[in-house]
Amino acid sequence: MLSPALGSVLAPVLTPFTASGEPDAGRFVDHARWLLADGCTGLAPFGTTSEGNSLSSAERKALLVALLAAGIDPARLMPGTGLCSLPETVDLTTHAVGLGCGGVLVLPPFYNRAVSDDGLYRYFAGVIERVGDARLRVYLYHIPPYTQIGFSIPLIERLRRAFPGIVVGLKDSSGDWSHTKRLIEALPGFRVYSGSEATLLDNLRLGGAGCISATANVNARLLRQIAEAPRSPATDALQAKATAIRKEVQLRPLIQATKAIIAHLRKDAGWMATRPPLDPLPSEEATTMMARLTGALGYSATV
Amino acid sequence: MLSPALGSVLAPVLTPFTASGEPDAGRFVDHARWLLADGCTGLAPFGTTSEGNSLSSAERKALLVALLAAGIDPARLMPGTGLCSLPETVDLTTHAVGLGCGGVLVLPPFYNRAVSDDGLYRYFAGVIERVGDARLRVYLYHIPPYTQIGFSIPLIERLRRAFPGIVVGLKDSSGDWSHTKRLIEALPGFRVYSGSEATLLDNLRLGGAGCISATANVNARLLRQIAEAPRSPATDALQAKATAIRKEVQLRPLIQATKAIIAHLRKDAGWMATRPPLDPLPSEEATTMMARLTGALGYSATV
Repeated sequence: MLSPALGSVLAPVLTPFTASGEPDAGRFVDHARWLLADGCTGLAPFGTTSEGNSLSSAERKALLVALLAAGIDPARLMPGTGLCSLPETVDLTTHAVGLGCGGVLVLPPFYNRAVSDDGLYRYFAGVIERVGDARLRVYLYHIPPYTQIGFSIPLIERLRRAFPGIVVGLKDSSGDWSHTKRLIEALPGFRVYSGSEATLLDNLRLGGAGCISATANVNARLLRQIAEAPRSPATDALQAKATAIRKEVQLRPLIQATKAIIAHLRKDAGWMATRPPLDPLPSEEATTMMARLTGALGYSATV
Repeated sequence: MLSPALGSVLAPVLTPFTASGEPDAGRFVDHARWLLADGCTGLAPFGTTSEGNSLSSAERKALLVALLAAGIDPARLMPGTGLCSLPETVDLTTHAVGLGCGGVLVLPPFYNRAVSDDGLYRYFAGVIERVGDARLRVYLYHIPPYTQIGFSIPLIERLRRAFPGIVVGLKDSSGDWSHTKRLIEALPGFRVYSGSEATLLDNLRLGGAGCISATANVNARLLRQIAEAPRSPATDALQAKATAIRKEVQLRPLIQATKAIIAHLRKDAGWMATRPPLDPLPSEEATTMMARLTGALGYSATV
């Protein structure tokens, strides 16, 4: 019922763009396959790191279909489907559920300000009822640095009570471990993901679901090792290594830096491209970053 | 060239919803017609007050078509067409321009954070080039309380230089008159609208374009009187009256309060409805507000 196929290490899959600025389905599928082979237990396309909200609904649908056409198991997919408007969120969520996705990651309707828990409840209830599919598994996307509005514990509890087995988890991108800890402790059985692997081990030891992290795009192998042995004292050193890499990468804009690492690992400068309004990482910054990461990242050759 | 048909008093047209939560095209058209008859020089459907981002693109297009079908001159319309993604902003903008709209009000791609002026430039240039229609008139929608990101003066100047006659104005919903004043003074010939009628007279006396204001939905007649005689000393009293009304209304959530006033003026409780996640104004709050506004608003009977 709780989509165990998604597992504990998910990457918000980076979205590559062609020279003319369109999503590049070929590179996207290749990257998704590599992530699953490298260590990701699941994939969260169209998250913040994926520049998900810079894609149209039609582009998201086409990319999702491309993943399935390439043989990727939809049970391992948790696409972002939360838009500003209720009908468009319903449309995108219905599409993902219809394809058999293991879950969907749903932002609150993020243009709004000064929204009550009642209002957010009505929004999410409206989405769930209109999708009207027992296969739906909703993961709430809590990311106040981007959305300002977020999910209170009473709101989450109310949604779980109203939609048991449907509202099953949350990604906490608050950037505040004490908040994630509080959620895990207050919501037994709820699948709470950290938004950064810097707290992956803490999350798992406390009974959380794992992490959905930008840098899982470039470090899934190591994160999987952590996730497979959270009780082993030896894992502490692996976590320290993962945290150090994360800290180095996030000295730069995270989306662009992660793309620059993939561009470097693949020897494919096309991977640097971002969609406006994001600027790609300047190449000199990428060079500096890669010099500092060499040896730390466990990839010695082209991946 | 500068769409004078839009004029200096615009309302972000409120969007009514049916009992089942769909946009109510009948009430919407009636309200738009009344606004133009009452004093609005132009209409800005799908702004923040219109719950524009709670509507799907398909719903916006249908409502815009309904306005034209009702005989409203598209030259008087400045619909909001700025979404999160470049292709969807292009699509909605192309639709509005194709219908002959006098302008479009375009938000920055508002899910993003830490965006550079270069990135925003590339985004807007991309939109304008892809729309590719000489009839396009872009009004930049500066509303940092909602979007966090906004438009710097150097960015506006760069866009004007690159797209003269296309990037023609801005709505300043910063809530900071000193910012609006700086824009008007720094950008001669640029059509700078205040986001509130509280600064309508200051705006016009300084050479600004007027206001696009939530409360123009309920007070257009008075605002039009101000706009027609900005040089007259007698207008100061009208402005004071308009400002007092605005201040009273904005003691409540502005969208819901404005809808409650229309519900009262029309004796139509259906007008209270908002789309989730917004909650309608509680009826006791509406009653209190109307008691305080009675006599101030220039509508003694059902409108």
